[in-house]
Amino acid sequence: MVASAESSPNPLVDDAFIDLLLFEHVDAVGLTQLPAFAEHSRETFELYLGAVRRFAREELFATYKPMDLEPPTLRDGRVITHASLPHLFRSMVELGVLTATRPESVGGQQLPQVVAALATSYLMAANLSAYGYIGLTHGAAHLIEAYGSDALRETYMRPMYAGEWTGTMALTEPHAGSSLGDVTTRATPTSAGHYLIKGSKIFISGADHTVADNIVHLTLARIEGAPPGSAGISLFAVPKRRLEGQALVPNDVRVSQVIHKIGWRGLPSTALEYGDDGDCHGYLVGEPHRGLRYMFQMMNEARLMVGMNGAATASVAYHEARLYALSRPQGRALGALPSSEVVPIIEHADVRRMLLRQKAIVEGSLAVLATTARYADVAQHGRDDAERERAQALLDLLTPIAKTFPAERGFEANALAVQVLGGYGYTSEYLPESYLRDQRLNSIHEGTTGIQSLDLLGRKLGARGGAGLMALADEVGMTLRAAKAHDVPAGLVQAVSDAAATVSGLVPQLLARGQRGDTQGMLAHSADFLDLLGTFVVGWQWLALYVVAQRSTASGATAREARDEGLRCTAQYYLTTELPRVHLLATLCREAEDSYVKMRPEWFG
Amino acid sequence: MVASAESSPNPLVDDAFIDLLLFEHVDAVGLTQLPAFAEHSRETFELYLGAVRRFAREELFATYKPMDLEPPTLRDGRVITHASLPHLFRSMVELGVLTATRPESVGGQQLPQVVAALATSYLMAANLSAYGYIGLTHGAAHLIEAYGSDALRETYMRPMYAGEWTGTMALTEPHAGSSLGDVTTRATPTSAGHYLIKGSKIFISGADHTVADNIVHLTLARIEGAPPGSAGISLFAVPKRRLEGQALVPNDVRVSQVIHKIGWRGLPSTALEYGDDGDCHGYLVGEPHRGLRYMFQMMNEARLMVGMNGAATASVAYHEARLYALSRPQGRALGALPSSEVVPIIEHADVRRMLLRQKAIVEGSLAVLATTARYADVAQHGRDDAERERAQALLDLLTPIAKTFPAERGFEANALAVQVLGGYGYTSEYLPESYLRDQRLNSIHEGTTGIQSLDLLGRKLGARGGAGLMALADEVGMTLRAAKAHDVPAGLVQAVSDAAATVSGLVPQLLARGQRGDTQGMLAHSADFLDLLGTFVVGWQWLALYVVAQRSTASGATAREARDEGLRCTAQYYLTTELPRVHLLATLCREAEDSYVKMRPEWFG
Repeated sequence: MVASAESSPNPLVDDAFIDLLLFEHVDAVGLTQLPAFAEHSRETFELYLGAVRRFAREELFATYKPMDLEPPTLRDGRVITHASLPHLFRSMVELGVLTATRPESVGGQQLPQVVAALATSYLMAANLSAYGYIGLTHGAAHLIEAYGSDALRETYMRPMYAGEWTGTMALTEPHAGSSLGDVTTRATPTSAGHYLIKGSKIFISGADHTVADNIVHLTLARIEGAPPGSAGISLFAVPKRRLEGQALVPNDVRVSQVIHKIGWRGLPSTALEYGDDGDCHGYLVGEPHRGLRYMFQMMNEARLMVGMNGAATASVAYHEARLYALSRPQGRALGALPSSEVVPIIEHADVRRMLLRQKAIVEGSLAVLATTARYADVAQHGRDDAERERAQALLDLLTPIAKTFPAERGFEANALAVQVLGGYGYTSEYLPESYLRDQRLNSIHEGTTGIQSLDLLGRKLGARGGAGLMALADEVGMTLRAAKAHDVPAGLVQAVSDAAATVSGLVPQLLARGQRGDTQGMLAHSADFLDLLGTFVVGWQWLALYVVAQRSTASGATAREARDEGLRCTAQYYLTTELPRVHLLATLCREAEDSYVKMRPEWFG
Repeated sequence: MVASAESSPNPLVDDAFIDLLLFEHVDAVGLTQLPAFAEHSRETFELYLGAVRRFAREELFATYKPMDLEPPTLRDGRVITHASLPHLFRSMVELGVLTATRPESVGGQQLPQVVAALATSYLMAANLSAYGYIGLTHGAAHLIEAYGSDALRETYMRPMYAGEWTGTMALTEPHAGSSLGDVTTRATPTSAGHYLIKGSKIFISGADHTVADNIVHLTLARIEGAPPGSAGISLFAVPKRRLEGQALVPNDVRVSQVIHKIGWRGLPSTALEYGDDGDCHGYLVGEPHRGLRYMFQMMNEARLMVGMNGAATASVAYHEARLYALSRPQGRALGALPSSEVVPIIEHADVRRMLLRQKAIVEGSLAVLATTARYADVAQHGRDDAERERAQALLDLLTPIAKTFPAERGFEANALAVQVLGGYGYTSEYLPESYLRDQRLNSIHEGTTGIQSLDLLGRKLGARGGAGLMALADEVGMTLRAAKAHDVPAGLVQAVSDAAATVSGLVPQLLARGQRGDTQGMLAHSADFLDLLGTFVVGWQWLALYVVAQRSTASGATAREARDEGLRCTAQYYLTTELPRVHLLATLCREAEDSYVKMRPEWFG
């Protein structure tokens, strides 16, 4: 009755594209010349990638739908998660996913972030919730690794990196939402060295489950007497069960609610209550009052992971739609007789348009994520200060984009995947609708799109004297020269060059507004500016991918002809269809279009 | 724990805006000068509107969420729908909703479509599924009214218009989808006059339920020996239970599946099997082989109803987001001290941007729907052939836009409503996520966006020698003159005038491609052209609404100051932010950007 969705299995993410990104687009092997990655080689990268791909396809993917259908429940104060999770978690730990990027000194493989991040795309595409437990545990343990005392590292980081316990990031409070400076959870010092924690958190993912024995909540709280706002917030490790001697005892942290999320349904989001009985111990991580700074120093990584989730969620849905369009016969070529043969819907130009737009978004997102992750590797492990600082400036500038573009455009791609399946796409008998729900979170968590845009324009753009944008202009310049040298059509090169000129003309005008005290005027179009810079950066990436295709063709790689043609078509699509929006958005920013600035609350209605 | 969503109840749709649309923007009272509406007046319009509004707010809205949570189930071959439905259906029948626009001769109130359609927006915003039974029954009965024999009208139309039975539209088949010419359900004539029907349909809404005693399926089928394709399809009335003498006996139509839809969850979508036992009687409506033509002649109405659903679904979500933003305190003004007072989030410019975009989409959609429905009234009841034909040309041209703009942009508005609520918006504890799911169907049913775009560019645009577009240019010209006369800022007038010039320059180029046989070339960018024309038409509507505000201010209506300022701001937003996309899209169409035309299936991956 219902047409079969696929003729071949969903690859989740395209292997050949990922290989091309890693080994041609960002030259991940080049990183092995840095001392930190000297033990690695293309072979070790491929070994890790291969193992992760196999697990994602052969085991993890099949568990996605059951978890979407059976979300966690709260029973007698305990959150009951899906029965397949302990095994999946353990398998990922054994594959080394949890500590792939961590140094050998803490038991990790010290892989470059760019390699680990692209491998992670398969896990996220296969089952984002199951991977979520790994991502959260990694993030929490990494905070202790970076800022915690030796005792905290031994007691709490070690079992998390070993996959015995899991971790969470407990930032948001019910009344404060995105406004982290308004956190009111209290920490009262005790003579025993620990603090007593009291307060409420909300939207805490993975804060209880049946996956592991213990959970460490990396919690923002305010030490009594701390200054108001973000300068008075400290970071604490607050375990679900604390270690007393050799025993784990309950630590007065209680799940009061499991929130009914519309996606990510294998991973519970909860409301947490700390210290109802006055017995919740928290252990200060690092110095007092520096908690928000620590969090922000780790934020790049978390935001890149959200961006990767956006790309992965758009990718798996794109492949569902692509396979459906290849195998679903319906309608005929334009002008064909009713008696002529029915064709697969991919033969209809508008279906190809919808697929090409998805491909442009998915692969453009993966490219900008790979590029940004490579800057992160150099920022941390580069040869000298100059190299590290330049990479850090690029990483800081690109992070809001690498988080937001895949989330916002990815949602559009996911909606198109539903559309390709038509009426079937509107049913839960097919997968695309669930990815649409999953994707919707990515423009909200780890800083909403609005917050990202304020971060980009209000903080990152002017930082270090504008070093990020200058370095970006350099990088774009190199790509433009390479494009000319490799016979990329002049119109496409010009489109990127024009967009670059628009960006570099606009930025000083916006920053000047801020410098003369007109913060409102500078930031009013922050969302448009983020959209603009993201559209431009992904355009730059597509030009670079065109160059990759040209190089491949020039080298006579005939086996890659279909892929290279596809890259060229997709680059053309993006650069002619999407990139010109940069100029429209620049006009709005430049002319400070003031409709919603002057709109008063009572004028809505 | 969870912030309260509203300080005041959701109005569903804004009364003052609807009044302004009806009585100023499209001058619905002017229609009462036509003989068909001579019995009506502003008072009768307001009486109907008022009754519908009250019912929508006081009764219907409260039933929405329970129906979303408890979708229909199939039990022993019977579809069990929500227990509140029979009462709701009966109430709407008593309000006259089912026959509001039908002539007095069949028991209707003979209201103009524009009045009935805007009243319907409240019902759809309150509970789209509950209204769905009315809409489907109206559509099915109207087909029999227009094309059926007296006997069919008496036997099947009369009880449907009386609200004793309901109706469905049974077009789609599992293998054929949008390709209606490939319908294979068979109709075999019998000597008794009826036909024996055999075949399968899918995605048939309301095809079984516990709302009424009987259901009449208006079914497309192929009489044996009919020519292939759409020229061989006939229309049949196929009741669930047929009348034999005075008795209703089962008619061998079986629900084989209830489809798990992601929205519209109070209205079952089903798979139907006709004639498993060879005893399914169908009654031919009109002439043989003209079924698809009949359907298409009724399609304008159905498509406007889908557009209205898009506008209504975006409206109710917009008001949820607006009320939340007014009442949710979070964060401070830019640069304010951490100790200063927390403000409602509507004070943040980016939140106002998201609300203003929703308002522009919701009210722009309602305006284009009102304008189009008024053309429908004149097309049917205008004074003379010339007036009727001009209005018909405008109706035909605008229908794909009035269906698609609210569906596509409405989905964007619904996504923004979720975003305004942040983490809360991502939960099913709040309403916006369900409207996002509901909205997703509107770009699929009654002809996907792709189908609408082929209809617009391949059929409507060149019809009657391009009379539709010429009449549209006239109408836009009148608005431009009125805007100048009422001191609308010159830049906004110019923006609409420039867009109009781009449209009238582009269309002949596209049509010329078709005339020289290059149908592919003409239609390759049909989706972009539909987007372009829709963006332009809504821009025209916003300019006209600016004029409405200017007139009001000039007349000294100080009580309306907030509303008029809001209209001006929203018009400015749309005309500076959205309308310029027309030129980008025109470039793609004009230059026949060929990325997805040349993209081959095997190049995806």
